[in-house]
Amino acid sequence: MGTLWGGRFQEEASELMQSFNESFSLDKRLWYEDITASIAHITMLGDCEIISKEESELLQQELTKLCEAIGQDPSLLTGNYEDIHSFVEAKMIEACGDAGKKMHTARSRNDQVAVDMKLYVKKSLTELSELAQQMIKVFGAKGEEMADVLMPAYTHLQRAQIVPFSYVLDAYAAMFERDVKKIDQAIELMDESPLGAGALAGTTYEINRQQTASLLGFAGVQHNTLDSVSNRDFIIDALHCCSSLMMHMSRFAEDFIIYSSQEFNFVELSDHFSTGSSMMPQKKNPDALELIRGKAAKVISLLNAMYGTMKGLPLSYNKDMQEDKAIYFEALDTTTACVKILTAVTEELKVNEDRLKETIHEGFLNATELADYLVRKGLPFREAHEIVGEMVVYALDKKTQLHELKLEEMKQFSAAIQEDVYTALHPDTILQQGIKKDMLHSHVKSV
Amino acid sequence: MGTLWGGRFQEEASELMQSFNESFSLDKRLWYEDITASIAHITMLGDCEIISKEESELLQQELTKLCEAIGQDPSLLTGNYEDIHSFVEAKMIEACGDAGKKMHTARSRNDQVAVDMKLYVKKSLTELSELAQQMIKVFGAKGEEMADVLMPAYTHLQRAQIVPFSYVLDAYAAMFERDVKKIDQAIELMDESPLGAGALAGTTYEINRQQTASLLGFAGVQHNTLDSVSNRDFIIDALHCCSSLMMHMSRFAEDFIIYSSQEFNFVELSDHFSTGSSMMPQKKNPDALELIRGKAAKVISLLNAMYGTMKGLPLSYNKDMQEDKAIYFEALDTTTACVKILTAVTEELKVNEDRLKETIHEGFLNATELADYLVRKGLPFREAHEIVGEMVVYALDKKTQLHELKLEEMKQFSAAIQEDVYTALHPDTILQQGIKKDMLHSHVKSV
Amino acid sequence: MGTLWGGRFQEEASELMQSFNESFSLDKRLWYEDITASIAHITMLGDCEIISKEESELLQQELTKLCEAIGQDPSLLTGNYEDIHSFVEAKMIEACGDAGKKMHTARSRNDQVAVDMKLYVKKSLTELSELAQQMIKVFGAKGEEMADVLMPAYTHLQRAQIVPFSYVLDAYAAMFERDVKKIDQAIELMDESPLGAGALAGTTYEINRQQTASLLGFAGVQHNTLDSVSNRDFIIDALHCCSSLMMHMSRFAEDFIIYSSQEFNFVELSDHFSTGSSMMPQKKNPDALELIRGKAAKVISLLNAMYGTMKGLPLSYNKDMQEDKAIYFEALDTTTACVKILTAVTEELKVNEDRLKETIHEGFLNATELADYLVRKGLPFREAHEIVGEMVVYALDKKTQLHELKLEEMKQFSAAIQEDVYTALHPDTILQQGIKKDMLHSHVKSV
Amino acid sequence: MGTLWGGRFQEEASELMQSFNESFSLDKRLWYEDITASIAHITMLGDCEIISKEESELLQQELTKLCEAIGQDPSLLTGNYEDIHSFVEAKMIEACGDAGKKMHTARSRNDQVAVDMKLYVKKSLTELSELAQQMIKVFGAKGEEMADVLMPAYTHLQRAQIVPFSYVLDAYAAMFERDVKKIDQAIELMDESPLGAGALAGTTYEINRQQTASLLGFAGVQHNTLDSVSNRDFIIDALHCCSSLMMHMSRFAEDFIIYSSQEFNFVELSDHFSTGSSMMPQKKNPDALELIRGKAAKVISLLNAMYGTMKGLPLSYNKDMQEDKAIYFEALDTTTACVKILTAVTEELKVNEDRLKETIHEGFLNATELADYLVRKGLPFREAHEIVGEMVVYALDKKTQLHELKLEEMKQFSAAIQEDVYTALHPDTILQQGIKKDMLHSHVKSV
Repeated sequence: MGTLWGGRFQEEASELMQSFNESFSLDKRLWYEDITASIAHITMLGDCEIISKEESELLQQELTKLCEAIGQDPSLLTGNYEDIHSFVEAKMIEACGDAGKKMHTARSRNDQVAVDMKLYVKKSLTELSELAQQMIKVFGAKGEEMADVLMPAYTHLQRAQIVPFSYVLDAYAAMFERDVKKIDQAIELMDESPLGAGALAGTTYEINRQQTASLLGFAGVQHNTLDSVSNRDFIIDALHCCSSLMMHMSRFAEDFIIYSSQEFNFVELSDHFSTGSSMMPQKKNPDALELIRGKAAKVISLLNAMYGTMKGLPLSYNKDMQEDKAIYFEALDTTTACVKILTAVTEELKVNEDRLKETIHEGFLNATELADYLVRKGLPFREAHEIVGEMVVYALDKKTQLHELKLEEMKQFSAAIQEDVYTALHPDTILQQGIKKDMLHSHVKSV
Repeated sequence: MGTLWGGRFQEEASELMQSFNESFSLDKRLWYEDITASIAHITMLGDCEIISKEESELLQQELTKLCEAIGQDPSLLTGNYEDIHSFVEAKMIEACGDAGKKMHTARSRNDQVAVDMKLYVKKSLTELSELAQQMIKVFGAKGEEMADVLMPAYTHLQRAQIVPFSYVLDAYAAMFERDVKKIDQAIELMDESPLGAGALAGTTYEINRQQTASLLGFAGVQHNTLDSVSNRDFIIDALHCCSSLMMHMSRFAEDFIIYSSQEFNFVELSDHFSTGSSMMPQKKNPDALELIRGKAAKVISLLNAMYGTMKGLPLSYNKDMQEDKAIYFEALDTTTACVKILTAVTEELKVNEDRLKETIHEGFLNATELADYLVRKGLPFREAHEIVGEMVVYALDKKTQLHELKLEEMKQFSAAIQEDVYTALHPDTILQQGIKKDMLHSHVKSV
Repeated sequence: MGTLWGGRFQEEASELMQSFNESFSLDKRLWYEDITASIAHITMLGDCEIISKEESELLQQELTKLCEAIGQDPSLLTGNYEDIHSFVEAKMIEACGDAGKKMHTARSRNDQVAVDMKLYVKKSLTELSELAQQMIKVFGAKGEEMADVLMPAYTHLQRAQIVPFSYVLDAYAAMFERDVKKIDQAIELMDESPLGAGALAGTTYEINRQQTASLLGFAGVQHNTLDSVSNRDFIIDALHCCSSLMMHMSRFAEDFIIYSSQEFNFVELSDHFSTGSSMMPQKKNPDALELIRGKAAKVISLLNAMYGTMKGLPLSYNKDMQEDKAIYFEALDTTTACVKILTAVTEELKVNEDRLKETIHEGFLNATELADYLVRKGLPFREAHEIVGEMVVYALDKKTQLHELKLEEMKQFSAAIQEDVYTALHPDTILQQGIKKDMLHSHVKSV
Repeated sequence: MGTLWGGRFQEEASELMQSFNESFSLDKRLWYEDITASIAHITMLGDCEIISKEESELLQQELTKLCEAIGQDPSLLTGNYEDIHSFVEAKMIEACGDAGKKMHTARSRNDQVAVDMKLYVKKSLTELSELAQQMIKVFGAKGEEMADVLMPAYTHLQRAQIVPFSYVLDAYAAMFERDVKKIDQAIELMDESPLGAGALAGTTYEINRQQTASLLGFAGVQHNTLDSVSNRDFIIDALHCCSSLMMHMSRFAEDFIIYSSQEFNFVELSDHFSTGSSMMPQKKNPDALELIRGKAAKVISLLNAMYGTMKGLPLSYNKDMQEDKAIYFEALDTTTACVKILTAVTEELKVNEDRLKETIHEGFLNATELADYLVRKGLPFREAHEIVGEMVVYALDKKTQLHELKLEEMKQFSAAIQEDVYTALHPDTILQQGIKKDMLHSHVKSV
């Protein structure tokens, strides 16, 4: 294997070691970033007269050609290379001879991989954010479509109060909106270029770090060079964004797996996102949602893995950090796939409106409103709560609902109750009052 | 035990269950936030004429009194209460009778605990940030004190290049500065008030959520009420901040545990932060740093625990979420203690300047600069690198250093080498060149 | 603070450091083990004539007295001590003078804390196992009580096939039985005494490690002394046992939280293990189960924390390892409490038999058996499966069940279907056939 | 895509869903186990007369042929299949027609995948154990080769006492021996066959679960069928074994990364397992060890991921569990590669004997023995410890070692010190005394 560091060694790495150590099979994914960062570096070396203008231009041309070639045919990314950096440098030496051997002047793979990964993470998080925003729009559209459907909402998986179905979607959209903002923050925090940090201590050349930073679209330069090459905070932050998205999607999955049980029967997943059983002919299983829930545990653990990798490492670059790529790529790919799946699942979701209509009259969903009614009639809330609690026990015994009790029965619990109680307990009344009106109009806006 | 929800129940919780379920022993720590949020709620209830002005004022007065009393004597926070909310309400019923029973109008413990925790997390993260900034200052001051001390920097724990000692401190300060910014971002993202969300579906009262949000210093209102009570993102973000700080401090600990080994002998920890052995009389151990490194694993796992707790929960509030307090308080306390300890350890650190002076002339720390020298003499970098690699092998065999080779010996490797090579390889020259000059002036400024 | 290692130090640890470093507040819990191990050590020192018989006997007497005294009044475990070892040694010096100062001959806190923790873990795991076995018995008894109750079992939370209610309890009992065996294995693997390893390299005294091992009930001696003091595998294994138990209990919690929703309505938790809402008067929440599910995430993360603590530590003892006690004690206490709660919850569980009776005739629970029927009539299983799948779609459209279809309707799908199909599809028939008969008699036996 | 469950569905899964859901790309790795288990199942179906003898024999023959074919050409494992089970069944239907369609009689993919994975985990853990035992032998052989080399051992990374170099290897061998035993225990605990559990509730056929269990080499049958299909404990246990091995190897890595620093300079890694720097020509980095240390964090997190996946799942099979394969295969492959690498690294390790000879006379490694000496002269240990502590401070000031102090100097600290102290402090004396003699003969035996 051709390496960038053979001079000091008298024997080659063993084959076992070569395959243990190589990262090309993974980091070839950074080809675009590696070439782009190399073009910026070469441009700067030329402008600073560290290499000649001609060399700089030749290399820029050949790098651009290589970039286009790979863009058209990714299978060019093969061969026995230690990593993507070695691949690109080898291609440039092939194409440009001595000029190619100058590419690595005033640069190390340590700052190079840091800048490649930062560029890649910035790009991929931006794409993830766009997919998340698309998902939020689908949640909003589904909400509008279902604008008139009411359902019970839950605490402790016990029926609690009435809400519009769209409000549940809106709650998840609110979570995803925070995730979108979290991604913005993560990008803002990482937006400093490590390029020029060299192996760890910069370089004796009069390079222009500000120029490469600008060319690559960074907001600024990462000042301390030791920190530049040993920092993987930006990957940890990106994993935190992925984990948060996955955690929210996993909660959605849990809710809708439960809603699609025969017992709840609130929704039906499209055949497109369900599977059956090899043994039980009747089964239709919400596999898509279960897979999202299962994969959430993995992505959260990838965050844990990256923290664990970095936790006790001394300055500056250590090879342990090479694990960042396998970790991030998996988290990114998983999260991206889950966002796409969940968007499509929601788009095709069938809501069982008839069933939901039944449910909102059961389960004492208006008990809080009855307590509020008593408060308006003059009772302190804590007493009203106690009284309604007793009324619930009474109704349970009679296997009936609060609003189905007769006025005389109700009056036994509190003389304050009058005929207008029935209006107060009606779902329409409830949702037209107080801050609840908002719920009816809460279909998510554009982010 | 007096609870806020007895009416519907025919039997009390078992004693076993009471101790399993109670959170007062932990959440009493939220007393200030619970009272503050209650004052805001009561003020708003009065202004919105949901309770009378007189009731509102009476409750505000008594809540303020309670706050002052606990401030002076925290031992008042005792008794057989389910949680801090029950404690405060009970005290108000004692003090104000019926008005006390109205406190909970248009409110649930679900939005109450959410707002309490948000207030607490905002406050505590701000304090943590201030301690971190104080630590950064101490790192800067120590750096200035040691401005003239040079040392080897490492990659792979192998000597790499020369840097000022202060530059290592500066690298850590750069990490902590990112943590400070991360805390700012976390606070910005959580800065919406959940109060008014009720149990999960708001309330039928015409409350004013914007008013309570303003009174409590939030930037706005958290719109969706289901999300308001089921959201613990802000705690996860806070744990991410703590984990990041701990990870950085753990890396510092690893570096300085290694530096204080007899073999490195770069620094000596103050007796104040070391301990000895019960059996080996000569031992002086860097316990403070080891404890920081050990505790980092715990704090990272607390982040993992909170993600794991939330991962598959359906909407909205579920009792699992009660675990957030034990998790956050431990992470916060640990991180806070470690920041304080590390600040003090750094302040009292003795640097072994004599030893460091020796080290910078060993270990081929100027090999990269020799390659750069050859490049300036006209060789392509990749060839220069190869040549210097061979020179290192030669010097290793002779048990000498590059700058101790004779000119003739050097010339055998490349005719381009001339007398000026010795100047080029001198530490002073190296640090006066290129971006390395910055290192000498990199003592961290105020954040 | 009196320490066991002052001689080499010129200044005391700072107050900040003393509180950061002290472990007495936690490790006082090891008092019984520390005294017991000290008695064994002292006995051996006397027998080996390293101290005199008189000294050995005096110390044994005083240690025994101390043990009894603390047993009667645990509040004796106070004072400004670094750890439990310092406490016990100080008490012995008070009581026995010079003999007390000889206690630590041929011993270090490194082997001492290792043996204390091993003794403690062995004891506490044994107790945990007994509680788990008690829980298994309660599951068996509940199963027998409910012997005639059938219910739907689920895959993907979709109704699958009929099983006895007791069989679900039996499934959990089977998991807990594996946990009991796992505890046995963990104890077997850790059953070697580290005492006598000294700080890390044994001692120059002619001690008898076999004797102390026997006195303390270990199966043997842990041979390598470096390993003896740096090994925390036994704590990791104990955490793995706790995590496994918690994971199984969390699954039970999930199942029974779902079963106690109004929609499923299969079971009702006793009032003793439920709580209500401060705002919603009708709520009865399965808090006990939710807390178990939430705490599972924490205990699993404690395992992760201990692995993370040990992961990159060099030999041999490092102070990071002191974190083992906080980690283990919390995991142990949490798991113990959850086992007790779950035992009691199950004991008092009310099963809604009427509701379950309805359910077993719905949801196509006999579809697999219909396919089996067709196979017995001569169709290959894969074809039978396909046919029944189509019959399910047909029945769904007609909002009916398979066994409610008329014979003619059925025959349209396969001519092989005859009158005996109705018998074949009856729950009683199903459970009397094949290996399903076992389910009816599967109440867990004593472990 | 051909599936085993199409009848009940009116639309195919979307393409997005097919790629999200498919597991063939991963579970094709189970081909041998899937075919083997199918042969056992088919044999039993024939013996129980559920299918005819002829069908059974035909299927056995064709399955055997398929097994041989794939063994010779693994590329046969391609095509658009949902999973390995669908692949094998499709091949049998191709080869045997109707008999192929009978293969799945009395079986579900739920029990099939459980038995496949158990067979695979048993086999792979056994192979991992063999590799670990091979590694232990190499550690023993290296220890014997280095039998005369002494070195300082460390606590808190501070020099503590003298040990043979082989004793450090022996310590790691002791850890790996526990891991070997842990693997045995894990296999023992999982050694029950889930086959015959069907989808979750067994089958109405009179199958013989004991027969298939015996044919497949299981010690017994896993009784409860719900548990059989929902149990992934055996994968968690296998991940625990991998994590423990990785944690121990990571500790070795940390030790030897430190030992190979220029400052320690105790060992040199073979060129075969080191790499260089693209920028710094002098670098030789212990990459192999760093990668092991880094990958440990990942494997530990995979354990965490599997626990997190299972944590809140209801009975019985849920699709989340499909993640078990990606998780286990990665942990297994990583651990296997690391064991091989570490074996080879150790085999080729160069120990710097000259350097180690110097070290054992420095760093007060005999301070404990000096305290022991004083105890033999009649002082209580605690006083002896104090005195030696002061002598260390005195020697540090004089920049000398304890055994280089003059007798008069020593006597100032204790009159008990006599000429024989110099013998007592000599490394040879120390290692010939007490339990330390064992260290010289501790080269690991065969496991």
